[in-house]
Amino acid sequence: MEERKKTRAVKVGSLIIGGGFPVSVQTMWKKPLAKDEIASTADSLERLSRMGCDLMRFAVPDEETAELLGALSRRTAMPLVADIHFDHRLALRCLDFPVAKIRINPGNIGDERKVREVVAKAAGQGAALRIGVNEGSLPKGLENESDTALAMVKAAEMEMDSLARLDFKDVVFSLKSSRVDTMVRANSLFSKAYDFALHIGVTEAGPLIPGIVKNAIGISELLRQGIGDTLRVSLTSSPDDEVLAGNEILRAVGCRNLGINIISCPRCGRTSFNVEKFLEDVSEFIQSIRIPLTIAVMGCVVNGPGEAKKADIGITGAGKNAIIFRNGEIIKKVPYSDAVNEFRSEVLRLCEQRS
Amino acid sequence: MEERKKTRAVKVGSLIIGGGFPVSVQTMWKKPLAKDEIASTADSLERLSRMGCDLMRFAVPDEETAELLGALSRRTAMPLVADIHFDHRLALRCLDFPVAKIRINPGNIGDERKVREVVAKAAGQGAALRIGVNEGSLPKGLENESDTALAMVKAAEMEMDSLARLDFKDVVFSLKSSRVDTMVRANSLFSKAYDFALHIGVTEAGPLIPGIVKNAIGISELLRQGIGDTLRVSLTSSPDDEVLAGNEILRAVGCRNLGINIISCPRCGRTSFNVEKFLEDVSEFIQSIRIPLTIAVMGCVVNGPGEAKKADIGITGAGKNAIIFRNGEIIKKVPYSDAVNEFRSEVLRLCEQRS
Repeated sequence: MEERKKTRAVKVGSLIIGGGFPVSVQTMWKKPLAKDEIASTADSLERLSRMGCDLMRFAVPDEETAELLGALSRRTAMPLVADIHFDHRLALRCLDFPVAKIRINPGNIGDERKVREVVAKAAGQGAALRIGVNEGSLPKGLENESDTALAMVKAAEMEMDSLARLDFKDVVFSLKSSRVDTMVRANSLFSKAYDFALHIGVTEAGPLIPGIVKNAIGISELLRQGIGDTLRVSLTSSPDDEVLAGNEILRAVGCRNLGINIISCPRCGRTSFNVEKFLEDVSEFIQSIRIPLTIAVMGCVVNGPGEAKKADIGITGAGKNAIIFRNGEIIKKVPYSDAVNEFRSEVLRLCEQRS
Repeated sequence: MEERKKTRAVKVGSLIIGGGFPVSVQTMWKKPLAKDEIASTADSLERLSRMGCDLMRFAVPDEETAELLGALSRRTAMPLVADIHFDHRLALRCLDFPVAKIRINPGNIGDERKVREVVAKAAGQGAALRIGVNEGSLPKGLENESDTALAMVKAAEMEMDSLARLDFKDVVFSLKSSRVDTMVRANSLFSKAYDFALHIGVTEAGPLIPGIVKNAIGISELLRQGIGDTLRVSLTSSPDDEVLAGNEILRAVGCRNLGINIISCPRCGRTSFNVEKFLEDVSEFIQSIRIPLTIAVMGCVVNGPGEAKKADIGITGAGKNAIIFRNGEIIKKVPYSDAVNEFRSEVLRLCEQRS
């Protein structure tokens, strides 16, 4: 693990990105905002916050959505980001509320003057900007460069002048590609040359399995190089899945250890305990816990308390009963029907002791 | 990417592990073998083979299962592995058929004489062995060493003498842990000292999302160091998911490029096309294709043909129609109701041209 690259701190609502602050996890809302769903959307943001989501982005394709985002921003503590393509006037409108951050893609906003207008207004409103460069939508003139990663860095550089001239500092950059190696290389090149905070992730990475594989490999490689201030795991799946995967990557590389690390056996012909079903039954409970704990859910005595003795707490099947153990010592034997409740109680007891 | 470490080739039925052969993907059967399910299990192995599964392992906890595994081995072309704990006589029985490989965990077979008996019979039958060391079940005397990765290497070394004395060469080693860093370090240490073929993976890695994250990070790091001859992504999920994740990891690090790479947008408030549903509808079709292709499934015109112009073939929503494109050029506009069929036809056409 290399030392973390020092970047400029950017205030995004109540969150700080960069400047040595913890790497934050963000995701994007997947549906159009609807007028009669503002309250339920705010509830979802509250739930996602408990799961480890620090920031939520919304596509703003029209005026109506901009107004709804304004209404939502007054009902949630989570910093919100407006994602703007093509029409810079939508960015200007979102800055009236203001939202915490505007994401623009210089490749499709067009005219440099329009970008400057957005920058000036963000400065006046204390909002942050993300300049989001994508391999697939580079500005004209850079589209056909042979070194794609370098072209992505150049696209980012094209925006820096305007920002500097307006003395605008609250900016986060991203350089995304659907190809892991291109994404990693573009960010490494950028990070060597500039100290702007970086939002990292593989874009358009595919459905759950390939999407997590690409993001875990690309994001972990950058984090190990000390690069990355905020991340999004882009998946053709739910925001929940993106947030879970993002926090799991941070935990796996030792960047941030919030919540529960699960050890669980994959099941096999020996298993007497339905590990998968048990994990489903406790998953919402597990996701709501922010105290770092390692729990083990094992199928049988072969890998029961023994293989999981380093877990803080664990459960395994043993004939007609489930055994709950702590640090490899059996503390309780319960019928399967009580397993979920008993396990929850023991985990909560442990959380109380640790908090 | 470092040069691939040269290991000894091991014949495992029709498959060769190590010796510079492609890194193979394996998984483990999750249910007990049942007498009336031998034919349907053989069908599942055939399906998994088309998805990129090279080897299947079965837990053999008793005599009856050993006999059923023998029956199955006569009905499938896929090499089968018997996973034996505690009772070495089950290994001896499986070697009568024989199965392609026996996996034993020296930590729980007990007596060294029993391990030697298994090795001698495997040699006579032309079967391979895997010595599977697990952090959680190290042999007595090594359990409490402070350097766990080193203790795992020592556990593997304890078996090497017997193997050498019997001049047994067809052996694959594995050194697994549920902790990514311990697993990576144990394999790096082992690989520097020995040229045995290595089976890699994070064990008891948890359910789908955390399990894929841990395995993608750990396995990709080893592959990039040139280490690993066969892999298993251990998940509390289906064998299908393990195989898909394994092949995806190989593709992401550029080790093996079989089948379809999916680029797909994560959906957002702009999306007019149900990307997730479309991907579900074509997933079995996509998994059956072994020709390397990149396909793009995008939600809207913002990232439609443009962002996906490097894909071999793609589809995106545009108002009431779906647009199918090749290399960024629109080739067809079809109503949503025909999208799945039209897309399949175009992919098959492309496969024919490439094969």
